[in-house]
Amino acid sequence: MALIRWRKISDAVVRRLPLYLRVLDEAMAAGDSKLMSSHELGERSGVSPALVRKDLAWFGEFGKQGVGYEVGYLREELRKILNLDREIRIGLIGIGSLGHALVRYNQQRFHEDDRFNLHIVALFDNDPAKLGQWLDSMPIRPLEALPEVAREQHLQIAIVTVPASAAQQVVDRCVEAGIRAILNFAPAKLVVPPGVHLANVDVSLEMQRLAYYLGE
Amino acid sequence: MALIRWRKISDAVVRRLPLYLRVLDEAMAAGDSKLMSSHELGERSGVSPALVRKDLAWFGEFGKQGVGYEVGYLREELRKILNLDREIRIGLIGIGSLGHALVRYNQQRFHEDDRFNLHIVALFDNDPAKLGQWLDSMPIRPLEALPEVAREQHLQIAIVTVPASAAQQVVDRCVEAGIRAILNFAPAKLVVPPGVHLANVDVSLEMQRLAYYLGE
Repeated sequence: MALIRWRKISDAVVRRLPLYLRVLDEAMAAGDSKLMSSHELGERSGVSPALVRKDLAWFGEFGKQGVGYEVGYLREELRKILNLDREIRIGLIGIGSLGHALVRYNQQRFHEDDRFNLHIVALFDNDPAKLGQWLDSMPIRPLEALPEVAREQHLQIAIVTVPASAAQQVVDRCVEAGIRAILNFAPAKLVVPPGVHLANVDVSLEMQRLAYYLGE
Repeated sequence: MALIRWRKISDAVVRRLPLYLRVLDEAMAAGDSKLMSSHELGERSGVSPALVRKDLAWFGEFGKQGVGYEVGYLREELRKILNLDREIRIGLIGIGSLGHALVRYNQQRFHEDDRFNLHIVALFDNDPAKLGQWLDSMPIRPLEALPEVAREQHLQIAIVTVPASAAQQVVDRCVEAGIRAILNFAPAKLVVPPGVHLANVDVSLEMQRLAYYLGE
């Protein structure tokens, strides 16, 4: 894969890869298909077949014209491309009700599928009432411990579920601790330096977007 | 607005409108600007200035060339376009830890900003242990009550935070109850009939996408 990484792949392409992977996961689980056409892969992931072929072509030649993609092979390749063939260790910062929900969600996904390699392995919160509590066999630690824990636990992704007013400061700490991928749930526009990737999940933006369609 | 609604606006455009609205909200709150250029609006919302101008042009002539947009006026117009100038009433189905987090989030947003017109007004869950409990002054009701409550409470949006295995059935019930906009958090691909809008928030897809960048 090393050479391919030199080509700059657009974020829009990367965003669709997990959709394809999910369809392939489902097909494998159902045992219903050894080969899948770009038409079916597109249909089931909500993407046009032409775009499926174009997206995958960035990473290599995975299918045969008129035959389709070999489900197990393409799935393995997508897992490698997305770095999901190895364990990815996540720190969760902010253990409110959303934090609890994410820990539970992560537990469930992990139990359902032992190849779901995204694991929350460390918890942080600055509320003195929460420090020292345990959740899913992990202690809740103060944010000051982040650099040390990040190093010891090899944290690669941080999930940030703190209030909007604290989010930039927390993200800055993550960056200082060497974390290069951050998933932010705080409804705030945050700044990260080049080389750090930030994804935002903002429920209020989704709801506002949905509200548009109520007027149709 | 009625005539403009006849033109089909792409979902990608609609998706960016709440980003612009947030920038305008922030500018109003800071009291720092009466006029804003498409350049600044683009910069602050992470969109190119040309795309800002193109997106807004779908809905009318809001700015003056070389002068920019009048912040308060454009904000009011965007609120109307997104139907956020009126109260939008939401039913929440699935009162686990994510459900609790969303209720709390909704409370906070509402208290911070009395013009945040998206309100969770009804709660549903089928767990007998939860039925009859109250949360934020709302009783948790059985799913069977959805059609009746949807009518009485004028529910327009449903937020679905049930397990993936129950999600399609719950969404079908929402559609039967006349709800036309659904925000789904279950990690499942759901089907809705034409005329119903479904938005999905899937944390595992976001994490998988982020994992891609760890390999760079």
